[in-house]
Amino acid sequence: MKMRTIAVDAMGGEHAPEAIVQAVLKAKAELPETKFMLFGEQTKLKELLGQNEERVEIVATSEVINDEDEPVKAIRTKKDSSLVVAAQFVKQGKADALLSLGNTGAILASGIFIIGRIKGIERPGLMPTLPVKNSDDGFEMIDVGANAKSKPEYLLNWAKMAAYYAEKVRGVSQPRVALLNNGAESDKGDDVHQQAYELLKSSRLNFIGNIEGNELLDGKADVVVTDGFTGNAVLKNLEGTASVLIHLLKAGLLNNGFWVKIGALLSKKALKNLAAKFDIDKYGGAVLLGVNAPVVKTHGRSDQRAVYYTIKQVDKILREEIIEEFKAEFGQAK
Amino acid sequence: MKMRTIAVDAMGGEHAPEAIVQAVLKAKAELPETKFMLFGEQTKLKELLGQNEERVEIVATSEVINDEDEPVKAIRTKKDSSLVVAAQFVKQGKADALLSLGNTGAILASGIFIIGRIKGIERPGLMPTLPVKNSDDGFEMIDVGANAKSKPEYLLNWAKMAAYYAEKVRGVSQPRVALLNNGAESDKGDDVHQQAYELLKSSRLNFIGNIEGNELLDGKADVVVTDGFTGNAVLKNLEGTASVLIHLLKAGLLNNGFWVKIGALLSKKALKNLAAKFDIDKYGGAVLLGVNAPVVKTHGRSDQRAVYYTIKQVDKILREEIIEEFKAEFGQAK
Repeated sequence: MKMRTIAVDAMGGEHAPEAIVQAVLKAKAELPETKFMLFGEQTKLKELLGQNEERVEIVATSEVINDEDEPVKAIRTKKDSSLVVAAQFVKQGKADALLSLGNTGAILASGIFIIGRIKGIERPGLMPTLPVKNSDDGFEMIDVGANAKSKPEYLLNWAKMAAYYAEKVRGVSQPRVALLNNGAESDKGDDVHQQAYELLKSSRLNFIGNIEGNELLDGKADVVVTDGFTGNAVLKNLEGTASVLIHLLKAGLLNNGFWVKIGALLSKKALKNLAAKFDIDKYGGAVLLGVNAPVVKTHGRSDQRAVYYTIKQVDKILREEIIEEFKAEFGQAK
Repeated sequence: MKMRTIAVDAMGGEHAPEAIVQAVLKAKAELPETKFMLFGEQTKLKELLGQNEERVEIVATSEVINDEDEPVKAIRTKKDSSLVVAAQFVKQGKADALLSLGNTGAILASGIFIIGRIKGIERPGLMPTLPVKNSDDGFEMIDVGANAKSKPEYLLNWAKMAAYYAEKVRGVSQPRVALLNNGAESDKGDDVHQQAYELLKSSRLNFIGNIEGNELLDGKADVVVTDGFTGNAVLKNLEGTASVLIHLLKAGLLNNGFWVKIGALLSKKALKNLAAKFDIDKYGGAVLLGVNAPVVKTHGRSDQRAVYYTIKQVDKILREEIIEEFKAEFGQAK
């Protein structure tokens, strides 16, 4: 197997570039066949890197795309941003995968417009791995917002890619694929979902039927496919609800008198476990599936540990050569 | 003001008919100008009612629609079910409002096909009141699943009805109306949401723009309007996430050794507060807006207290004569 190179946008996220460089160094020690390219402010990166120059190359860039930037405009105008230059390197074959903690829309736009779509995939989909209730397994959910408008064929292709990913990268054999819909029966939903149901049923996937919004975390499916609009609303709602509940619980624990306070101290471990369970970051980043290289976005607030896990995830995607598989599968279909 | 009559399906829900009859008796004592009709098994209802016959009439029915029944088929075939007969009484003007804890789809179908749509309203919408983070206020969300396919005009009408409801029934002055969308900017979303945005902006509503799935519980809006498919997925996800988190937390508290257990006991009150906060039932039932009478569905697991609150809510809707207002508003528009 040839050496792999991961292009890392070192300037995105709240803890950039420190946490990112530390994560790269930690992952590098465990991945002897992987090289890294760090895109960002040269002086700062050099200083953080110190003597650890083996298998790490710094590519100096002068601009940064912020969360406030309008995505498509930003990748057109900030030509020397760490994200755009990193994507260009992947496009040109100088690197094999792109990892960023920055502006989600700009990462999607870089993947779709710079790195480019796989032939046969009309619309790439964004896929995070989410936690389930009673185990450490998770499930893939696709698309969570790369597309506001979805067609039934998109959903079929997303399901195929996500199932392949679940099998190769996450080791799930015969992943159970479900369609997020507004009821269990096959005729539920609007035209897009009714047709997607038929396409999924006729496919070779292990399609188990519809799943409803309240069942997502129950671990019934390994892959949940959804139109990008609903997926976006549901994922954000999931994160919002979890964060509000944890906040309310902490507030409740701290506002109810002395004994409850003592109780809270003793229960701290349980609360911490709960927060860990719903720390979506521990499952690595969200993958943009359907472009010519792995493009992985992890949360802007990711710390060194979260970035480290995401690097391992990107490396695993490269090792399993899933993009090559997608190119063969969908390229010949058209 | 004339006497009001509420038609109560006494056979729906897990605690029927006991909890329902008890709730009616409790509410009746506080609402001297309200009459009740109980639809269900006569012998049983008579026994539960005892001597409390004043302002309560029993209407004997021989069938019950279960949660497993296919809604539209059920209302066509189970002609003598408590739900269908209750809806017929409302249709015929013998009662003014319908309350049920039964099969949601069958309640929607009874409202739309038996009681009938208000002239000028093409599609009624289902609207629960949901909790917000830092206050006891809630917000209205419409539509949460009466419609799998939505047009921009539907969303506008739902927003108008929900805003009027928020003002009259919940006492919110100038309710802030937001559109659930996949980003803050006006051009976000698919065609339906882009057009709905423009319609809402041009209306006389206090439209504050888009809201995203993670902001729902933040209390930024008094009314959130959404297409029925997304609304259904998001509401179910919200309930599912809250229930999983509370479950995990309890499991965590009970699985972490002696001191954590003691902590859990001391924190029980906080947990209870949290559960109460996310007890969606305490805000009453979900209202089907756009039909010729108030049709209110409350959760199948509602206990006597929850049903009691829902009766008070139905009574308030009747007192504020909001259906009459909708008939005047939308009837003349066409």
